[in-house]
Amino acid sequence: MRQSRYFLKTTKTFSEEDKVISARFLKQAGYIQESVAGRYYFLPIGQRVQQKIMAIIRDEMDKGGAQEMVSPILHPVELWKETNRTNTTGFELMKVKDRRGSEFALGGTAEEMFVDLVRKYELSYKDLPFHLYQFSPKFRDELRARGGLLRVREFIMKDGYSFHRDEGNFKSEYEKMKQMYTRIFERMELSTTVVEADNGYIGGEYCHEFISESDIGESKYFITEDKTYAAHEDVAKFKRNPANMGAAMLPFQIIGQPEWVQTMDDNVKHYKKEKNNFLKNVVYKNRVNGEIIIAVVTGDLEVNQNKLEHVLHAVGQLEPAEDADLIALGTKHGYVHCWGHKGARYIGDIILKDAKNLIGGQKEEMTDSVNVNYGRDFTCELLADITTAKSGDYAEHGGRLIEGRGIEVGNTFQLGYHYTDLMKGAVYRDEDGTEKPYYMGCYGIGVGRTMAAIVEKFHDEKGIIWPEQVAPFYAHLLAIGEINEKLEKFADEVYEKLSASGIEVLYDDRKKMSAGEKFSDADLIGIPWRIIVSEKTTKEGKIEVKKRSGKESKMMTVEDFITHTKK
Amino acid sequence: MRQSRYFLKTTKTFSEEDKVISARFLKQAGYIQESVAGRYYFLPIGQRVQQKIMAIIRDEMDKGGAQEMVSPILHPVELWKETNRTNTTGFELMKVKDRRGSEFALGGTAEEMFVDLVRKYELSYKDLPFHLYQFSPKFRDELRARGGLLRVREFIMKDGYSFHRDEGNFKSEYEKMKQMYTRIFERMELSTTVVEADNGYIGGEYCHEFISESDIGESKYFITEDKTYAAHEDVAKFKRNPANMGAAMLPFQIIGQPEWVQTMDDNVKHYKKEKNNFLKNVVYKNRVNGEIIIAVVTGDLEVNQNKLEHVLHAVGQLEPAEDADLIALGTKHGYVHCWGHKGARYIGDIILKDAKNLIGGQKEEMTDSVNVNYGRDFTCELLADITTAKSGDYAEHGGRLIEGRGIEVGNTFQLGYHYTDLMKGAVYRDEDGTEKPYYMGCYGIGVGRTMAAIVEKFHDEKGIIWPEQVAPFYAHLLAIGEINEKLEKFADEVYEKLSASGIEVLYDDRKKMSAGEKFSDADLIGIPWRIIVSEKTTKEGKIEVKKRSGKESKMMTVEDFITHTKK
Repeated sequence: MRQSRYFLKTTKTFSEEDKVISARFLKQAGYIQESVAGRYYFLPIGQRVQQKIMAIIRDEMDKGGAQEMVSPILHPVELWKETNRTNTTGFELMKVKDRRGSEFALGGTAEEMFVDLVRKYELSYKDLPFHLYQFSPKFRDELRARGGLLRVREFIMKDGYSFHRDEGNFKSEYEKMKQMYTRIFERMELSTTVVEADNGYIGGEYCHEFISESDIGESKYFITEDKTYAAHEDVAKFKRNPANMGAAMLPFQIIGQPEWVQTMDDNVKHYKKEKNNFLKNVVYKNRVNGEIIIAVVTGDLEVNQNKLEHVLHAVGQLEPAEDADLIALGTKHGYVHCWGHKGARYIGDIILKDAKNLIGGQKEEMTDSVNVNYGRDFTCELLADITTAKSGDYAEHGGRLIEGRGIEVGNTFQLGYHYTDLMKGAVYRDEDGTEKPYYMGCYGIGVGRTMAAIVEKFHDEKGIIWPEQVAPFYAHLLAIGEINEKLEKFADEVYEKLSASGIEVLYDDRKKMSAGEKFSDADLIGIPWRIIVSEKTTKEGKIEVKKRSGKESKMMTVEDFITHTKK
Repeated sequence: MRQSRYFLKTTKTFSEEDKVISARFLKQAGYIQESVAGRYYFLPIGQRVQQKIMAIIRDEMDKGGAQEMVSPILHPVELWKETNRTNTTGFELMKVKDRRGSEFALGGTAEEMFVDLVRKYELSYKDLPFHLYQFSPKFRDELRARGGLLRVREFIMKDGYSFHRDEGNFKSEYEKMKQMYTRIFERMELSTTVVEADNGYIGGEYCHEFISESDIGESKYFITEDKTYAAHEDVAKFKRNPANMGAAMLPFQIIGQPEWVQTMDDNVKHYKKEKNNFLKNVVYKNRVNGEIIIAVVTGDLEVNQNKLEHVLHAVGQLEPAEDADLIALGTKHGYVHCWGHKGARYIGDIILKDAKNLIGGQKEEMTDSVNVNYGRDFTCELLADITTAKSGDYAEHGGRLIEGRGIEVGNTFQLGYHYTDLMKGAVYRDEDGTEKPYYMGCYGIGVGRTMAAIVEKFHDEKGIIWPEQVAPFYAHLLAIGEINEKLEKFADEVYEKLSASGIEVLYDDRKKMSAGEKFSDADLIGIPWRIIVSEKTTKEGKIEVKKRSGKESKMMTVEDFITHTKK
């Protein structure tokens, strides 16, 4: 491709928003262009990268026996009603009506569409298992788009759905998919950590995220030193450190407290005890039904809103209570009681089972309660795992947890019977003649986000350094210096020879442009091999070859370069 | 691909809706499945065909220097407001709001998106011309979906947009694209007729449709015997046959008329004159602004609603008036006057310039008017080409018109400055330093409709007969008869050898299925080459090869078949 004719415009400027490296370089180098926030054009060179990523995914999926197809983008909203997802995904789901009044969802995922497809057929156990997938645009009505391709409102996702006779058959597919995903990302030179994750609004019992490590990523997880356990912070299980475990319960008392004792740190200072000795209440409101929830934990723990939402079967519905909500409860910030607020639902962390003789629970202006014990002095509607692990905590099965952070590039979900129970008729005929619901899994990879994750990993201060497998071109041929007839002829020849040999070349044939500008564009664009043709190399009939990632350059004939490449 | 593991389900039944051959066979053979009316799943085998069609288009587009990219699917509605298309496309455009209240169009085409992209850059004449294209889902809120993939509400379109310095530069691209489109369709064995067409809501001055001949098609066109002129019925120009041309005007008269004279045929019988001697009024209503339009023509002509809408700059806005509209005008069906209805706009066909001494115009229960002459007795707001040609009419530049009918698989549009005038800042810097608007063209191919057109052309009573270039597989291997161990082993071997040689094979390895069922599935599916392995062929170590389109079968070794294919 001749750069002079290519719709590829680099720019030196970048906005404050683009301090995320991948956003900055992908925009500056002309891979993407924003339409409106969170919606991007993939420009010709960006589309090449996107297609290479898709080709790798497709190759592995096909080898693994999955079958590519494509479903409509507008999903009849009736299907989403069958699975109750019009409520649970509430804020992220976009809907549109046609002129006949039929309503459609702009799908963020397509479970309903694939179940609805499959139930249109009368299948038997002999048809199982099968795995259908598609590359198709997905929509998320995100409140905040951020970081270029990292969090967008519209993107291409590879989404796959597998249908099985039973759990056992599913599990082998699930394992296969975990390995396949790891291999897919490895082919792009992304090593991923597979972590147990929160299934959000997808449903099912367990799921995994594939995380490419990056400080800029939104996925925080914990992994044991021996790597036998890795889980997203929203699901990571950890051992609590309950105060006074096993101690005898002392008599409950209301005692005086100086006015300056307000915060958790004040408590620690005043009572000279560790944070785990104090009770702490965090108040939430369910924005759908207005319920007030008081989460009761100890001072060493932070409430995990996601865990709490799952316990309450209210995924995506909680928000921190506001002052007005506290006033309505008859209290204010810092003075919420562990019991007695009428109408509030109390949910406690499991630490309360074992912690003894806690402080707090019924704090007034100049008093507090001590020797407070769960079960004797107060109870909650239930105790559950509603708090977040910290680095240094122990995993349930031993092993210290280390915190990690990265970009979620893929995920796999056990769906089980979640959808096929809710959607009538999603059954196959088993060997014994009875109808049974399909056991399902689903699997996703965000193509654009994967592209961003690669850039986050492979760049330097000058620009992108694409791994060969996903690079838009293999070689970037630069005609450098004053481009006279002789040089142009030689550079054209090199270009023709490379192209004829099947090497994908971007040929910077632009005239009246300094070597410096061409080099800096090439660094920004990040094609793996750079080939320079200058007056000097023309004289020798050679090319100067340098890796984008390296420093050394080498003179050789174009034929040698081609031979070297083909090896 | 082993058929036993392939998500490919054929069916013998079909609905009344599916009397369109392509709809019937594509559904019966498992290529597509309806989600809701006009929205289809492309099943794995259907997606293969779609991808082959896309690959041919991509190959030709790339060779022609066009550059693939992809734009967001949701178009900010502000852009469509800049070009006034939220009104003109009124009923076909779907819109959706996000949670922040931003409104988006679900694009049916993407002119605004590409102009908006290009105007984000400061380009100069040196960057021109360029041609950007994409494969992307398009949405049309059609009142009636029909004929499977022939008229749908959601489909993949290849849409391309070219940007030029001036008309001259555009014209050479336009010619190139016409040739490229012809070649693209020829590679799929579709010969297309290129006809002048109506630009509908796209805008611009001229455009062409690529029509694959078919009785089931919706595009009616006229072509001269010498093929020098071909035009869609909505734009075809033709010579009128005015009554009494050149005759002196006779005195206008109101005369008696028997009560039985009601219709045009009654008139012909009563007055013993040809239809072109009678005036005829057709009444329309503009559904946007409520205006009543009376189209005045002669009895030999039919009003063309599209032509009339263009004359009125009211594309997509007219509908036939209802009885209530006529009553509001103070008249009724059959008694509309050529003049005098207050508030109505009168538009006449150009035939009125030359026709003399016409009958009708002011008909009452027992009277009618005769010797009515345009200009003397009545005038219209304007005279224009508002009627449809008929087979046998003469083209404007000579040559008899023959009627043709077919499926519009592609179209090309001159856009000129239509969009770049309306969208501020869509300019490049010319050699003289001044800013000038881009001169544009756009070019579309409906991928699914092309697939349907191929089936309409290539089938017999048993099913589809795919041309090799777009066939989902090259060969269909059938293991026939009782599948014992020996036969299975041999068939597996044949499958492996074919696959290893790069031939795409669908392998019907299904057990406990009669030869008849397998043959009839194979006929329906329509893969070009059929390879049979039976007890007999296994004994000989050979395969039986037959073309789907032929009758003769031939015994040969699999190696011979491979050699024959590679040639």
